[in-house]
Amino acid sequence: ALRQNTSKQPKLSQSSFSLRSHTCGELCSSHVDEEVTLCGWIQYLRQDLFVILRDFSGLVQILIPQDESKSELKNAFLGLTVESVIMVKGRVRRRPEGQENKKMSTGEIEVCAESMEVLNTCRKLPFEIKEFVKKSEVLRMQYRYLDLRSPRMQYNLRLRSQMVMKMREYLCNLHGFVDVETPTLFKRTPGGAKEFVVPTGDPGKFYSLPQSPQQFKQLLMVAGIDRYFQLARCYRDEGSKPDRQPEFTQVDIEISFVDQAGVMSLIEGLVHYSWPEDKGQINVPFPSMTYEEAMRDYGVDKPDTRFGMKLVDVTTAFQGTQIEFIKDALLKPGGCIQAICVPEGTVRTESVDSDSNVPTVYVAPVRADGSLKSPLSRLLSDTAKQQLLQMAQANAGDLIFITAGPLENVRPLLGKLRLQCAELLECYGVPVRDPSVFHFLWVVDFPLFLPKEDDPEMLESAHHPFTAPVPEDAHLLYTQPHKVRGQHYDLVLNGCEIGGGSIRPLCPFFSVLLVIRDVIAFPKSFRGHDLMSHAPDFVSEEDLKPYHISVVWPRHGGFNLRMPFKNLMIRSFLPIEWPASRE
Amino acid sequence: ALRQNTSKQPKLSQSSFSLRSHTCGELCSSHVDEEVTLCGWIQYLRQDLFVILRDFSGLVQILIPQDESKSELKNAFLGLTVESVIMVKGRVRRRPEGQENKKMSTGEIEVCAESMEVLNTCRKLPFEIKEFVKKSEVLRMQYRYLDLRSPRMQYNLRLRSQMVMKMREYLCNLHGFVDVETPTLFKRTPGGAKEFVVPTGDPGKFYSLPQSPQQFKQLLMVAGIDRYFQLARCYRDEGSKPDRQPEFTQVDIEISFVDQAGVMSLIEGLVHYSWPEDKGQINVPFPSMTYEEAMRDYGVDKPDTRFGMKLVDVTTAFQGTQIEFIKDALLKPGGCIQAICVPEGTVRTESVDSDSNVPTVYVAPVRADGSLKSPLSRLLSDTAKQQLLQMAQANAGDLIFITAGPLENVRPLLGKLRLQCAELLECYGVPVRDPSVFHFLWVVDFPLFLPKEDDPEMLESAHHPFTAPVPEDAHLLYTQPHKVRGQHYDLVLNGCEIGGGSIRPLCPFFSVLLVIRDVIAFPKSFRGHDLMSHAPDFVSEEDLKPYHISVVWPRHGGFNLRMPFKNLMIRSFLPIEWPASRE
Repeated sequence: ALRQNTSKQPKLSQSSFSLRSHTCGELCSSHVDEEVTLCGWIQYLRQDLFVILRDFSGLVQILIPQDESKSELKNAFLGLTVESVIMVKGRVRRRPEGQENKKMSTGEIEVCAESMEVLNTCRKLPFEIKEFVKKSEVLRMQYRYLDLRSPRMQYNLRLRSQMVMKMREYLCNLHGFVDVETPTLFKRTPGGAKEFVVPTGDPGKFYSLPQSPQQFKQLLMVAGIDRYFQLARCYRDEGSKPDRQPEFTQVDIEISFVDQAGVMSLIEGLVHYSWPEDKGQINVPFPSMTYEEAMRDYGVDKPDTRFGMKLVDVTTAFQGTQIEFIKDALLKPGGCIQAICVPEGTVRTESVDSDSNVPTVYVAPVRADGSLKSPLSRLLSDTAKQQLLQMAQANAGDLIFITAGPLENVRPLLGKLRLQCAELLECYGVPVRDPSVFHFLWVVDFPLFLPKEDDPEMLESAHHPFTAPVPEDAHLLYTQPHKVRGQHYDLVLNGCEIGGGSIRPLCPFFSVLLVIRDVIAFPKSFRGHDLMSHAPDFVSEEDLKPYHISVVWPRHGGFNLRMPFKNLMIRSFLPIEWPASRE
Repeated sequence: ALRQNTSKQPKLSQSSFSLRSHTCGELCSSHVDEEVTLCGWIQYLRQDLFVILRDFSGLVQILIPQDESKSELKNAFLGLTVESVIMVKGRVRRRPEGQENKKMSTGEIEVCAESMEVLNTCRKLPFEIKEFVKKSEVLRMQYRYLDLRSPRMQYNLRLRSQMVMKMREYLCNLHGFVDVETPTLFKRTPGGAKEFVVPTGDPGKFYSLPQSPQQFKQLLMVAGIDRYFQLARCYRDEGSKPDRQPEFTQVDIEISFVDQAGVMSLIEGLVHYSWPEDKGQINVPFPSMTYEEAMRDYGVDKPDTRFGMKLVDVTTAFQGTQIEFIKDALLKPGGCIQAICVPEGTVRTESVDSDSNVPTVYVAPVRADGSLKSPLSRLLSDTAKQQLLQMAQANAGDLIFITAGPLENVRPLLGKLRLQCAELLECYGVPVRDPSVFHFLWVVDFPLFLPKEDDPEMLESAHHPFTAPVPEDAHLLYTQPHKVRGQHYDLVLNGCEIGGGSIRPLCPFFSVLLVIRDVIAFPKSFRGHDLMSHAPDFVSEEDLKPYHISVVWPRHGGFNLRMPFKNLMIRSFLPIEWPASRE
């Protein structure tokens, strides 16, 4: 190929510098009569007459020459196996009338092959590269380089690349942020239990792989880089937690001389600017909700607001009840009774038990006449039942879940139930959460401190110790610290926390996570294994010598019993107490 | 601050979302009479009348109000210490006539302070934040966050961010490359002695930190991502080598369906597009030179072509010599005599011995009458001396270095001497290598195999085993492998290898290094230490337990004697043999 003039080019070219003249998918009727060179993978052969060639951009039909003089070329084509890589030269022509394929973006044309070179031959594959061929997750991961050939993965990886590029344009070119790389070989944080260690040649000395560039970005603010960002690789050794990668990337932002509203506008602009066109328009500013509102209505600090089924306090309906355990629950500090109502929940879930693949749920339906079909029913007065139905806004055919206990336990339990009901309904084909809709939501006014998990009498930082309190709450710091709100705010998308930030004295920051498995080219399994390369792997004692470490083999074989927590088995609608309070 | 409308903005704004209205450095006479808010660091106070305020963009003069009614504000200013952080509101005014400062970009104006808030107070610093204050490297690294405040480091970090952004625009937006992240927790490469290991919770199992995304990018080509790039974090455990960081970043590129010329054009375009405007125009295509030419003329495969002093073969001048050791050298396989001539070398280096800070060099000058002032002189015939002077193109006052031995030893030795002469001359104020000039150079046609370092009878891959041979040399692979040229090519800038690539079957790649210390925000010392955080550091046995490893303490204290190789002590111009041939 001639050395091309590479000075500033105005437009995207996917075939610059290349042996190909065009990509497969870009060919259309405007290319008719053009001589083209294509490189790609054999999708399939058809009727000994056509080869369907694929590259990342799409498919195109190659016509195999049929006349005797070209029998050698014809035979070469017929000898091809699917997924082999070839280079084809040929001329584009309009397909004969009636043979157009409207389902194919290149369906108006085909390429009459004039020569062909096999660049690589493919032997039998472990699975076909077709979207509709279902593969097990393990098989996909084991042959990730083949799995990545699927149109969905090709789309995902390109989408991620483009979104990240737009984010960089927004931060760097429009708002003067400086992209600074910070080290990943760092010093261990005291108490940093989730940090991987990296032994070095100095006996007993280790680096650690940091969980975030937290310290470095604060130092950069101190250093006067007052607008910093980085797509930062982060590491977290969480053992075998599902949906957690041991390494992941986040858009890490820190900016001096700004307040919370400023950072929120910045992030809204970032999302708006980098949002993919084919996902539809999103509107800014995003709605916001306080932590207290989120917990009150959704039982969770990252509510999925695409659907209702909000939590309702029905304590008053049980005022003066004689049911012992409800009375007991109400007497405890924070005791309350709350409910969620699943519209048409009985209609849809009557057959739950018959399908063993779905978690068993004993339903507590509202009968057609409005009465409750439940063992609780005979223990409640008619007035109470009426009140309950009214408060829960329950209609015939609906399903009510009721929980009694301390407020801080009841809310998260119903919050989880709410999501599981949505999942269950979707299993039965009831659309609850529209996957094509994107509900962005700010959750603000987080408490600065929360009770310690292992010692609820003590408080600890809800997020990290660098969050500043909301100024009007600062006077409560030493008297009622649990009431102090922090200048921390999360960005939630469809029930997932996708980013979080806080105001520190002078240095607000924000991080957005990019850890969605299907946009990671080579993810680890939930045990942190790379099923393709079999990392992590054994290392010989010889290889460990330079690091002055040796393996301490456990005396007994280990056995891990993992308790899957995702699908709670709900066996009764009767008041369920949160496990913690049983202790 | 009001939530701003953040939809697509056309222009760079450095103060968007911010409490400041302007940056310090952008203010000029067009802002006169405007009310501004500035945030920055106190550079210094002058005459109790002015505060010089600094941010990344520059300096601006703040006028402290002098009238009695504002004595409180005045006192607040006078109580400030340098490097404290403040926010100032005030009005821009033109400086009184005669008080303009032409050396200052904001020197036409000043800001009359109306209010001021101290955001952070600075106590005594370990050194002043001024360019002219010389600091030791250790002190700079220990207080890196202060060192980064210097205008030079602020410029460097911003320059790097902008160059990298331009590279991404070129690759992603103009040429359809996909930015794909690959894992850094990988499986250990067999024999990968320079890979850090990362212990995991599985007893005896380790990840490793890869030296490059080599395997992953090849898999991405297989996966049909036919244009890949990544700013890849790479790790290399090289112990205590100077100028090597244990982690560094390279622009990693891989492209399918392309030849060597295509990749070279791509890279030229990349450098041209991302080259900073203030460094002057660079021209493409870059000149290229074969490996053999580079070794012949410069004694090195990454020649600095900014200056001459090329190697000259002077063997014929010594034909029929009676000098024993030269006769011996010539009899050995590949034996030759080569020289470099340092123009005016005697004039400049006569005083070498008097300065003990500079490596000692015994000079072999050409006298004013053209005769050689050297112990060798009396052993050479007049004809030979004449021939030598002519071949070396030596004039009166020049200095000639002569070396005898096998070609493969003589060339690299003179190559090193050539660079050391340049360094030495520059110590004496003779400009040799213009630092403002950028000589890009391709070095091509590398040999596919080179003799093994520890066993010169055997051959090993010169670069890596995935390099394809030059097609016209392929027939020599099994008969004369040392003659086979590989499709490998390096990009050299002013004598530094800044990138390298090779053609593999189908998958050319290219990497460009970004490891220049002064564009890394937080570099490690040459022993791999972070002088700021003191990483790596000791980790308690308790913390190592989850990783099933323990430290093996060396029985005796260790002692490393490092042999500095950078500045060879050259005690004679007499034939110096390459250390290897002494064995």
